[in-house]
Amino acid sequence: MDGVFISFEGNDGSGKTTVIEKCADVLTKKGYQVLVTREPGGTNISEQIREIILNKENKEMDVRTEALLYAASRRQHIAEVIIPALAKGYIILCDRFIDSSLAYQGHARGIGIDKVFEMNMFACEGLLPSLTVYIDVNPEVGFSRMKKDCRKLDRLELEAINFHKTVYQGYQELVKRFPNRIVSVNGDQNLEQVSSEVIDLVLKHIKK
Amino acid sequence: MDGVFISFEGNDGSGKTTVIEKCADVLTKKGYQVLVTREPGGTNISEQIREIILNKENKEMDVRTEALLYAASRRQHIAEVIIPALAKGYIILCDRFIDSSLAYQGHARGIGIDKVFEMNMFACEGLLPSLTVYIDVNPEVGFSRMKKDCRKLDRLELEAINFHKTVYQGYQELVKRFPNRIVSVNGDQNLEQVSSEVIDLVLKHIKK
Repeated sequence: MDGVFISFEGNDGSGKTTVIEKCADVLTKKGYQVLVTREPGGTNISEQIREIILNKENKEMDVRTEALLYAASRRQHIAEVIIPALAKGYIILCDRFIDSSLAYQGHARGIGIDKVFEMNMFACEGLLPSLTVYIDVNPEVGFSRMKKDCRKLDRLELEAINFHKTVYQGYQELVKRFPNRIVSVNGDQNLEQVSSEVIDLVLKHIKK
Repeated sequence: MDGVFISFEGNDGSGKTTVIEKCADVLTKKGYQVLVTREPGGTNISEQIREIILNKENKEMDVRTEALLYAASRRQHIAEVIIPALAKGYIILCDRFIDSSLAYQGHARGIGIDKVFEMNMFACEGLLPSLTVYIDVNPEVGFSRMKKDCRKLDRLELEAINFHKTVYQGYQELVKRFPNRIVSVNGDQNLEQVSSEVIDLVLKHIKK
């Protein structure tokens, strides 16, 4: 495997999509082959799986079913996209990967980080990013960036913000558990500063 | 949990569906509340998952994706059907359960029985049948019985006879690994004899 696999994590509204784009631009200009991807990554089977997960009609979905479906979608994305790109020497910038499952299903939904990690090891077959950039943004800031309007929050939105806070706590836990893989970047700065910091990190990692 | 959870396993063409029906008849006549089920068990979400697995267009499906999808379908069936029926005191007769994944994906597809078992423990949360009846039929006999059946064969059933032989070896391995849970019944006898033997086994197990 000649390529490098890097994932990006953070609460919704952390700005990671913009940061990834800027990072890809810089790397491409420097002559690297870059693949920007996110699950389901354009794979037909993963798309079908995501439709089940995201279908609002599927209200009775058990949280472990959801975690297994995310892992199935991840597996197919790994098999069809990540592994072939690594073999071709690409720098892969992946918007969310295993840590999203750990923070959302493992921590916030209460299954437990260890259990979701272990189950995902079946999906990943040991393949983890060599670097995970975590953009640490205050969950209230992230949530309001995402919403962009100032009206009073309704009940569901308040529930949503509490959920986002729990996801945030999950990420804090992951940063402690995987200190060699996950690097935390202060996401409360403006996006130019965040991007610049991330690009430095990524370049340093690639040149290792 | 007042009910009893019993699963039935065997190669395609082993006659287990007929055996289960006969067994359910006898138990019902004896006054037991009986639930006959099989994955996806009428749950809406599991049906959607099965459609992805069995869709012949999905040729690029990775074997681990397939195993994860079966586990997701299983989990939803457990949450919506098995656990509520156990709580209501039903005798549950389930046509295939975890051992099918172990024999098919674990052994025959080469992932490894231990790995598929461990991943399925996430789905089952420790819930296994207290008895598994394995109908041991010579795979060539089973396959020829199946071919005489006029229904349309799905993607898995279209696999060659060699695959069925490998599945058979997988089941032999499982019988050795789980001697306290799995009881093997000679399926090369006529179905009346097989059914009668299975009914005796099941009644003895229930009365324990």
